[in-house]
Amino acid sequence: MLEALRNQVYEANMALPEYKLITFTWGNVSGIDRDSNLVVIKPSGVAYEDLTPETLVVVDLEGEIIEGDFNPSSDTATHLELYKNFKDIGGIVHTHSPWAVSFAQAGKSIPAAGTTQADYFYGDIPVTRAMKNEEIEIDYELKTGSVIIETFQKNKIDPNRIPGVLVNDHGPFTWGKNPEEAVHNSVVLEQVAEMTYHSLQLSSDNIYMSQVLLDKHYLRKHGDNAYYGQN
Amino acid sequence: MLEALRNQVYEANMALPEYKLITFTWGNVSGIDRDSNLVVIKPSGVAYEDLTPETLVVVDLEGEIIEGDFNPSSDTATHLELYKNFKDIGGIVHTHSPWAVSFAQAGKSIPAAGTTQADYFYGDIPVTRAMKNEEIEIDYELKTGSVIIETFQKNKIDPNRIPGVLVNDHGPFTWGKNPEEAVHNSVVLEQVAEMTYHSLQLSSDNIYMSQVLLDKHYLRKHGDNAYYGQN
Amino acid sequence: MLEALRNQVYEANMALPEYKLITFTWGNVSGIDRDSNLVVIKPSGVAYEDLTPETLVVVDLEGEIIEGDFNPSSDTATHLELYKNFKDIGGIVHTHSPWAVSFAQAGKSIPAAGTTQADYFYGDIPVTRAMKNEEIEIDYELKTGSVIIETFQKNKIDPNRIPGVLVNDHGPFTWGKNPEEAVHNSVVLEQVAEMTYHSLQLSSDNIYMSQVLLDKHYLRKHGDNAYYGQN
Amino acid sequence: MLEALRNQVYEANMALPEYKLITFTWGNVSGIDRDSNLVVIKPSGVAYEDLTPETLVVVDLEGEIIEGDFNPSSDTATHLELYKNFKDIGGIVHTHSPWAVSFAQAGKSIPAAGTTQADYFYGDIPVTRAMKNEEIEIDYELKTGSVIIETFQKNKIDPNRIPGVLVNDHGPFTWGKNPEEAVHNSVVLEQVAEMTYHSLQLSSDNIYMSQVLLDKHYLRKHGDNAYYGQN
Repeated sequence: MLEALRNQVYEANMALPEYKLITFTWGNVSGIDRDSNLVVIKPSGVAYEDLTPETLVVVDLEGEIIEGDFNPSSDTATHLELYKNFKDIGGIVHTHSPWAVSFAQAGKSIPAAGTTQADYFYGDIPVTRAMKNEEIEIDYELKTGSVIIETFQKNKIDPNRIPGVLVNDHGPFTWGKNPEEAVHNSVVLEQVAEMTYHSLQLSSDNIYMSQVLLDKHYLRKHGDNAYYGQN
Repeated sequence: MLEALRNQVYEANMALPEYKLITFTWGNVSGIDRDSNLVVIKPSGVAYEDLTPETLVVVDLEGEIIEGDFNPSSDTATHLELYKNFKDIGGIVHTHSPWAVSFAQAGKSIPAAGTTQADYFYGDIPVTRAMKNEEIEIDYELKTGSVIIETFQKNKIDPNRIPGVLVNDHGPFTWGKNPEEAVHNSVVLEQVAEMTYHSLQLSSDNIYMSQVLLDKHYLRKHGDNAYYGQN
Repeated sequence: MLEALRNQVYEANMALPEYKLITFTWGNVSGIDRDSNLVVIKPSGVAYEDLTPETLVVVDLEGEIIEGDFNPSSDTATHLELYKNFKDIGGIVHTHSPWAVSFAQAGKSIPAAGTTQADYFYGDIPVTRAMKNEEIEIDYELKTGSVIIETFQKNKIDPNRIPGVLVNDHGPFTWGKNPEEAVHNSVVLEQVAEMTYHSLQLSSDNIYMSQVLLDKHYLRKHGDNAYYGQN
Repeated sequence: MLEALRNQVYEANMALPEYKLITFTWGNVSGIDRDSNLVVIKPSGVAYEDLTPETLVVVDLEGEIIEGDFNPSSDTATHLELYKNFKDIGGIVHTHSPWAVSFAQAGKSIPAAGTTQADYFYGDIPVTRAMKNEEIEIDYELKTGSVIIETFQKNKIDPNRIPGVLVNDHGPFTWGKNPEEAVHNSVVLEQVAEMTYHSLQLSSDNIYMSQVLLDKHYLRKHGDNAYYGQN
């Protein structure tokens, strides 16, 4: 079932240790088949060296296991909530990558300070508000998704143009049109977190790049007038 | 003698350089057999590339060498003191891992700032008080154990729920139900030290996560109602 | 066409991931043949593992493609502007190396704080002013070159003695008498950015080395009286 | 000539890139044969991959080349000055290792903040005063040695107990009873610089360890009453 997607999700999961985004099992990737509304996701707590395409779990959007011998990731409900609300995305990544977590624990967004971020994120990478006690106590993982969606809706952020978020006191989620692109965005987020952390220590001035420079870099890689690459 | 435990302790020692927790011989792992009250520990000052299961030393809880051709780790008395007082633990790790030492030298606990820590440590990772001159001068290694135990008793910390400590101006000790878990906790401690160091530079606000979020993450992985992983 | 230069530019491009100066495709190297005024440059957005000498693109100083099946790097116009104005240089490197970007995003030059920098850069490594809206909106990549040249001319900096720059809110460009030397200078710039960042956190005093020490180190490696190495 | 020492110096030089203490050719190791007063040292500016025991240069204490086809390291005069004045040392290392240089550029000693340093250095690792113009202009490398010796004599520091120094705005020199031990001390210096940098950012309090703890750790590894290791 969903063999091509299984392979994509498997490869994307295996890319996390390769890019040094995870320690132990602290991360997971999923992908969705928008025709059948089925999601392929990493099993919970399984070591990366034991992972194969066959160990991945297929769930529907209500979280029912459709195929698979393992429990799905404990973060599955968060993934599903994002797929339900961000209609264009095809893959999601969650990690505890260290620079991103440093911002998340400080409750700080990553400001759009330079062109590296602008090449992939059309503005700041937002941090969610702290979750309320009742959100943590009941349906925590689903509510983690809800607070992400609230962050984007309240601040009128387009998830297609800001493909990632920091969950307060927790860590990053990123997404993309497929699992591979979601991993790519996770690498970028970690890298800009590292660089902008250091910029913030070097300067107490306004750290933001100009809107015109942000437009230029984002739009030369994305949208109808893009001219980066071979297309 | 104690062949299975010897192999566990050997594997756990060899994991320290693999996880980049040690430089040269700056670390040691032990394991205890609670039936015989015998402890298997790394020999002192032996390079990791020369280590084999056979070079490990077996001592009793009074520190007498029961089997082995080498001197046991100079930190043996600290390990024994912890085994005598923390009755449930089966393995102990000591390293000079750099981020943990950075906090230890600053005399600072690692605050529970995010879910990465909460997944393994049910609160702050404490730093001991500075040792007194007479504690350093006489039975230094044993007293290093005593000051760890004092830290947990005085602050009513359960060593099963906070499986690690920073010895002031020295470095981390971690433990677990076996040597492998103790190493695992040593990796986690080092990682959260790195991340929380950076969070503390980013924010002068209250760095603590909420108690409810701490409960949620610790208890979804530990205890009767845990639901992380495949159990 | 230009087979020797093609190989040099290819080797220099492949050195970027080896020296960990780039993530994904975030960098490019070019080289110029001063006899024919033709420039060999990396194609845009092609992964390093897919790069061969044959995939490189040959352009003239007006940016016309003379040979090659791919689009040249989107930064080509910046390279050409530098070749036109810095007459002695034979190779150019652009990366988003993290420590250099940290200074660029903070809008800070890298001060000449020690002998490591002095061995290669005869003074501070300057940051450009922020680009004006109209410079970003029209001919952005060419104007990126212009603002670099302005920085050197206005401040009377000799590009042969300061073989690199930080473009504000963007990242580093370096150059040299050939592509290999340009990569070498890119490694040095990244390394001194890392070290001087930390020196600046350690000390609020004047961070500059003395002019006499700067002279000594630069001139013992460069110019008629150099005595470093085997010449 | 001096085949055993040649091999030791060769191995010690090759250990520098292995321990990530150097970039390019920014470092050198020498060793002395105290019977003949001959010194074996790395040739100047030769890449580590081209180094063999045969390429090393033998010089006498006046710097005359006794054997070798290459120029000796440009820092040779510094090494010789140290061998002449620190009578017990058998090997010297110079690097531009990044954390050590960060302190050197800031003009700061590395304070004895924890037991990692105390295991190898019996106190602070001192930084020299800035060199005077005339010291830089005439016999610079020899005077670099002189300012190191002045630092130890003026502050009554025993070079056998503090086997390393930071040359102001330059970088570290370390030494030991042989080239291997000198490299070992260079690794330790870099590691404690990294850790203590972070401790200093975490705490504005007194960062020093107690004298009694410093005594304990240094003396349990060094001197007549040492009990660390297998002796």
